[in-house]
Amino acid sequence: MSKRTIPPHRPAYPSPAGLITSVAPDGKPNIVTLAEVFNLSIARPVIVGIAIVKSRYSHELIAASGEFVVNFPTTRIVGAVDLCGTISGREVDKFAASGLTPIPAQLVKAPLIAECPLNLECRLLGIEETGDHDLFKGEVLAEHADEEILDEYGRIQVDKLDPLCYLFGEYWSIGVKRGWHGFTKSGE
Amino acid sequence: MSKRTIPPHRPAYPSPAGLITSVAPDGKPNIVTLAEVFNLSIARPVIVGIAIVKSRYSHELIAASGEFVVNFPTTRIVGAVDLCGTISGREVDKFAASGLTPIPAQLVKAPLIAECPLNLECRLLGIEETGDHDLFKGEVLAEHADEEILDEYGRIQVDKLDPLCYLFGEYWSIGVKRGWHGFTKSGE
Repeated sequence: MSKRTIPPHRPAYPSPAGLITSVAPDGKPNIVTLAEVFNLSIARPVIVGIAIVKSRYSHELIAASGEFVVNFPTTRIVGAVDLCGTISGREVDKFAASGLTPIPAQLVKAPLIAECPLNLECRLLGIEETGDHDLFKGEVLAEHADEEILDEYGRIQVDKLDPLCYLFGEYWSIGVKRGWHGFTKSGE
Repeated sequence: MSKRTIPPHRPAYPSPAGLITSVAPDGKPNIVTLAEVFNLSIARPVIVGIAIVKSRYSHELIAASGEFVVNFPTTRIVGAVDLCGTISGREVDKFAASGLTPIPAQLVKAPLIAECPLNLECRLLGIEETGDHDLFKGEVLAEHADEEILDEYGRIQVDKLDPLCYLFGEYWSIGVKRGWHGFTKSGE
């Protein structure tokens, strides 16, 4: 195995191709596509991070409104996902342009995206500058799931999610299950 | 499409099943498996984040040494990945237990893992408490890639990476390419 040293660029993979919704002061919703969606605190409390460059319209909207929704798309809407990452909500109504459907959230003004099977309503905890992106930390106030992805006990079935993975500028589906946390201890 | 509200737990997906290496003061290396590996700053400079609970041995080692290496595994070593996430380096030599191969890094004492096609040497910038995990920010000092995953221009070929994705407690391979950033603007 021969190694070569290469210039790093956005090196961690895979990450979600997440759709982040927010609202302008006049109530108009916007969407931005971000691969930078992180689990910062996993249970007590549940905190997610999103990293956004200062120039994005969503940076301004989330900083002003103090809330956002993270929506996880499927491969079926990869075109809408890409479109929402390559045009600006300052000029375009991204819901109209993408054909995605806003539905009201429970606790925040930013809408859920109906076509995404999982949606996280978040309250902004703070913003910190980290190199070329700003890290927004958000407490997850509520999570919503499509009934179709839940099993009889209400647990998420990964094989129903059809998630969209982002790796080095490319969108990929997931493949096959190769194990689960702890499987090497359970005798397999 | 009917939505149900569910209790959130580690909700962002997919994330890498990353192997993080560090060294003890006596030079003995350790490995921890983390799904929490983040692109915080993507180019200028390149900063990655990792989130670790305080009780993990690697938390102590990285805080003391000020450096770590992020190694991205393949599905071929899923057993080693799971093992390194379910035993403690306080009691076990994880390189010996997992069969993974340490190779010297260029700029830090923590080793690269030979079986991982991409490795990031990182210098710790700081640690901050965020809920139930602590966020370690690290500047990427050097990235190393297996020759086999690079094309003739030195670019990473995603179809050669065989990455291991982590979603809701399960390890998955990636599937098929569904597009690339900007494909909706390039006429497809």
